[in-house]
Amino acid sequence: MSLLSPRRIALIGASADSARLTARPQRYLRRHGFDGAIFPVNPRAAEVLGERAFATLDDIPGDIDFAYILLGTEQVEDQVKACARRGIPVACVLADGFAEAGEEGTARQARVLAAAKAGGVRLLGPNSMGVVNTQARMALTTNAAFEAETIPAGRVALVSQSGSMMGALLSRGAARGLGFSHLIGTGNEADLTAGEIASLLLDEPGVDVVCLFLEAIRAPDQLAAAAGKAHALGKPIVALKLGRSPFGAELAASHTGALAGTDAAADAFFRAHGILRVTMLEALLELPPLVAGRRAAKAHRAVGVMTTTGGGGALAVDALGVRGIEARRPDAAAAARLAAAGMASHARLLDMTLAGTRPDRVAAGLDALRAAEDTDLALAVIGSSAQFRPQDSVAGIVEAAKQPGKPLAAFLAPEATASLRLLGEAGIAAFRTPESAADAIAAFCAWHAPRDVVMPAAPAITVPKAPDEADARAVFAALGLPSDAVVMQDRVPVGLRYPVAAKILSPDIAHKTEIGGVVLHIADADALREAAAAMRARAAQALPRARITGILVQPMAKGLAEVILGFRRDPEVGPVVLLGAGGVLAELSRDIALRLAPVDETIAHDMIAEVRALAPLAGWRNLPRGDLAALARAVVAVSRLAAVDVVREAEINPLIVHAEGQGVTVADAWIVRG
Amino acid sequence: MSLLSPRRIALIGASADSARLTARPQRYLRRHGFDGAIFPVNPRAAEVLGERAFATLDDIPGDIDFAYILLGTEQVEDQVKACARRGIPVACVLADGFAEAGEEGTARQARVLAAAKAGGVRLLGPNSMGVVNTQARMALTTNAAFEAETIPAGRVALVSQSGSMMGALLSRGAARGLGFSHLIGTGNEADLTAGEIASLLLDEPGVDVVCLFLEAIRAPDQLAAAAGKAHALGKPIVALKLGRSPFGAELAASHTGALAGTDAAADAFFRAHGILRVTMLEALLELPPLVAGRRAAKAHRAVGVMTTTGGGGALAVDALGVRGIEARRPDAAAAARLAAAGMASHARLLDMTLAGTRPDRVAAGLDALRAAEDTDLALAVIGSSAQFRPQDSVAGIVEAAKQPGKPLAAFLAPEATASLRLLGEAGIAAFRTPESAADAIAAFCAWHAPRDVVMPAAPAITVPKAPDEADARAVFAALGLPSDAVVMQDRVPVGLRYPVAAKILSPDIAHKTEIGGVVLHIADADALREAAAAMRARAAQALPRARITGILVQPMAKGLAEVILGFRRDPEVGPVVLLGAGGVLAELSRDIALRLAPVDETIAHDMIAEVRALAPLAGWRNLPRGDLAALARAVVAVSRLAAVDVVREAEINPLIVHAEGQGVTVADAWIVRG
Repeated sequence: MSLLSPRRIALIGASADSARLTARPQRYLRRHGFDGAIFPVNPRAAEVLGERAFATLDDIPGDIDFAYILLGTEQVEDQVKACARRGIPVACVLADGFAEAGEEGTARQARVLAAAKAGGVRLLGPNSMGVVNTQARMALTTNAAFEAETIPAGRVALVSQSGSMMGALLSRGAARGLGFSHLIGTGNEADLTAGEIASLLLDEPGVDVVCLFLEAIRAPDQLAAAAGKAHALGKPIVALKLGRSPFGAELAASHTGALAGTDAAADAFFRAHGILRVTMLEALLELPPLVAGRRAAKAHRAVGVMTTTGGGGALAVDALGVRGIEARRPDAAAAARLAAAGMASHARLLDMTLAGTRPDRVAAGLDALRAAEDTDLALAVIGSSAQFRPQDSVAGIVEAAKQPGKPLAAFLAPEATASLRLLGEAGIAAFRTPESAADAIAAFCAWHAPRDVVMPAAPAITVPKAPDEADARAVFAALGLPSDAVVMQDRVPVGLRYPVAAKILSPDIAHKTEIGGVVLHIADADALREAAAAMRARAAQALPRARITGILVQPMAKGLAEVILGFRRDPEVGPVVLLGAGGVLAELSRDIALRLAPVDETIAHDMIAEVRALAPLAGWRNLPRGDLAALARAVVAVSRLAAVDVVREAEINPLIVHAEGQGVTVADAWIVRG
Repeated sequence: MSLLSPRRIALIGASADSARLTARPQRYLRRHGFDGAIFPVNPRAAEVLGERAFATLDDIPGDIDFAYILLGTEQVEDQVKACARRGIPVACVLADGFAEAGEEGTARQARVLAAAKAGGVRLLGPNSMGVVNTQARMALTTNAAFEAETIPAGRVALVSQSGSMMGALLSRGAARGLGFSHLIGTGNEADLTAGEIASLLLDEPGVDVVCLFLEAIRAPDQLAAAAGKAHALGKPIVALKLGRSPFGAELAASHTGALAGTDAAADAFFRAHGILRVTMLEALLELPPLVAGRRAAKAHRAVGVMTTTGGGGALAVDALGVRGIEARRPDAAAAARLAAAGMASHARLLDMTLAGTRPDRVAAGLDALRAAEDTDLALAVIGSSAQFRPQDSVAGIVEAAKQPGKPLAAFLAPEATASLRLLGEAGIAAFRTPESAADAIAAFCAWHAPRDVVMPAAPAITVPKAPDEADARAVFAALGLPSDAVVMQDRVPVGLRYPVAAKILSPDIAHKTEIGGVVLHIADADALREAAAAMRARAAQALPRARITGILVQPMAKGLAEVILGFRRDPEVGPVVLLGAGGVLAELSRDIALRLAPVDETIAHDMIAEVRALAPLAGWRNLPRGDLAALARAVVAVSRLAAVDVVREAEINPLIVHAEGQGVTVADAWIVRG
């Protein structure tokens, strides 16, 4: 596809007034050295900015690789059709007023997409600021950041759903010599999505890392495929995604026209597919050198830190600690190397304040810290020398980086642009602030290879249109999580273990308790018979039209803990499974673990370990242990709903966890069809 | 005191070799324009860097305002004594090797302090990088950041326990025109603490805001006094304090020789005294203009946001949302002004992408957002124009800031140093990153006036040396939280409400359950008599030497919720009271609220609202309401332990909260004497 390196470009609606937005692509292409053919399409000018103009696309001689449609919203559809007629493989649309602009815009976008598909045109946008390939000196963009005289090249590609943030990242990188290989604005992603473009970029020999600035995850399968390819090629993907707060999620949705999922689901998606997620703007710029050419390895969630500034080092250690990353004392391996170099340290910080400007000492210290077997990387914190003696202050780090080993990172405490630039040029991850260093390092320490859980075959179950609780239990049983409840009609079942609980069954009654549809602690068969009749009577009175399908009867159970176990299809990333502290607190405490579904038992145990309220069940302080193995199997079973397409959402709350070896009990359950 | 503006300065140990650390104060003083008298003390030179040198302090003619002792650790004590002999009012000590260096260092620091006190010398340090007063062109410092040719002045004073971070902040500020009025390195604070110095700085007419970089809070009373003065004068104090993570706290303690308290206690301290706390390095630089000349007002925890970049605006809204600050739609007042200016917006973001470079429009938009009655400030997010047209891009904001009203802040999405500088010069808070903007704004929105809870008179209670549970309950009862437990010796008390619980009482038995010292659900007097005897027998067997003081008997109680209510004396900030979800989870869930003790009922209700697990008791989802008024009174009662000096720590766990109007029950309690 000629998306990344077009040689013959049509600019539909190129303005002859160089001050206008629509004149920018032509100006920027030439300013930054594009030597291919440009065809301005402008019916009111014979020449545009010194190049021959064409009244229509049809007037352009020869093939066209790429058309950038710069015209207004209303004219886009016709121009896409014109591109189709000319057999142009890729068209990019600048205008907004599509899916992000309500119903009418959504319909307009659908028409444009249909026209493109019918004509074999791949579409970038709408609302796209274009494509830049610095290695090919091809700046096909309306982004004002390209007013800059020069644009540094690099080996990191950027895909951004926001055009303006593409420019913001470019300018921030340029100020310290961090360049990009490509910058691509994907806008509404009517056709080409960030995931598909990331895949294309990974194939480019000049790309080491792909960065994503996302407002929404639109085609999770494509992004997942790109992530798999990234792992195979050793070209990591780093993402910053908005929507971490409810206000941000609402805004991102309205801004892009995409349905917003929950941030926990997005997080689970990135984690499952081995995409590094940062949360700070500058961390997206600063992280790539840390991962370029690497694959995710076992994470210790710990780092070795050396410093030439006590306060700066403490600041970095604290920022890391807040994110759960430990600055660890040198282990035996590291201590041995330190000793061999005539240094000694048993502290969290290898303090080199006095030796800070002796590059050989700094290199030896970092070499020793990298030798530790229980850390993920070594961080150098540099003080005032970074401001006044850039070469001296970074020489030791640059020297150390020449040896293979764990990644090196640096945080510079003072204002030190020249030092940041030197480190960047040496391919060393260098951070302006302790917080962005900690954000990026935390993402690095959480990085895993893409997980590989095979989607199970859908079990042979039918789910009624309006499933009641017995149906829900039947589905869970089919997935491997049995229930000890039975359905009673007129006769009391034999062999019940009393006391029991009884609930009215109806696809039409959502809140059973409120209409007196639940009775607990029923002591014997007579009492059960009576309770069943009373419930039926109350239900008939309260909701005369509700279909009553029976009475669900279950032995009373009291375990060590109650959890909520849920399943739903996130609008952005698809099926997810959730485990959390149960009952009323489930909604309040936010003490949950969430993963893409399905999961295997290993992941289920990770989830259990993540829920703080479950810690007592793991044998905390001599408390009785819970049956966490059974709980893990239950999580796996519920996660298999991913394969049952008709189920949109399901929940067991509470699931009662008994003592070790005693299993779990489904105490309440429901499912909803999609 | 001549701390801030000395005119006659002795430099004890000033080096004649200009490359040396100890030559810096003299070089920096002259480089930055000091026109007072400098007296280098150096027995091996007649002249030091062109100024007449003196062999000893005694050789210097006339009064000396300030001595900076640049000699090694071992020589400090003698030099302080020499300062005392000369009647020098302030001495600053550069050397380290004192309280931060183990026992020997602690003893050394005590000797130096004693010498200073005996001689009437106020001490800055040890481990201090000195004092800078840019308004007086007085740079008496060893900090390398003063190698810079010029140092911008300003109206923000900085007090830093870390010398190197003083330089880091100076250089970062200088790069964008944010200057300081004073920079003072306090090091170990053997004598002069950050709090006392902050008070002195608040008296300076050239100071609008005092910033603190803290590793420890050493003299909380002095800092509290400064905070009260800050509020009275309308000169806010902003603090960044390390120790937010356990690793950081450990490091700060070892680095400064101070005892580390918990971060929650430090947070409570800042909140109680109206000190704004930021968590990000650059937020400490960027926040001051937001608060200069202002006092804390009612906080809505909401802001109005206008933007000229969709992606940048969304990024800011999301970063704010993560910190619990809402970007709010214009209210009626704001909407009316917008309408009057021919604009309309009902969105979270006032999108001015098209009008972004028309200063009159931007000013009108900000003017409208500031008119909202339900927000704390207005934030402008500026896109690419900030990079290429600094004047145009900030003109509207500068114009708006000329009108009185709520504070204005700006976040610039691209690299835009010139625009940041223009905003800084206009006294407008301008942020480099969305995260530091959100950090500072969250601090602003959490800002309250210093609270004024009068320390109650200590109740007339005696606390035995080794208090048992009955003693603890007696103390709580004296403070206003009665208990329904009685102590039984041989005879069963009459009038008990069965079933009851019984516990063995002993100052020597910490874990009653483990030796069979607790019996629950006792049905009647006979059973109680039997249980008491059995418990005494088991205790005698397990711990024959334990003194048994009786059997505590209490009616069994089951309420709506169990909480933990605790009191302790934090090593940094003093007495604090803690409320949290009870039981085993108290330690695991971190769902707690903590405040300086004592508290009043208003603060107690704030604490209750902060504990997520208590939300159901406030009438959530038609659940029964708990007696939160009684709980608040219990919190107040326990917090009054602050006045009972002999009590070091106390805890009620669980305190059972009953339904509205039914009160609370102390189910278990202990206190520890100091």
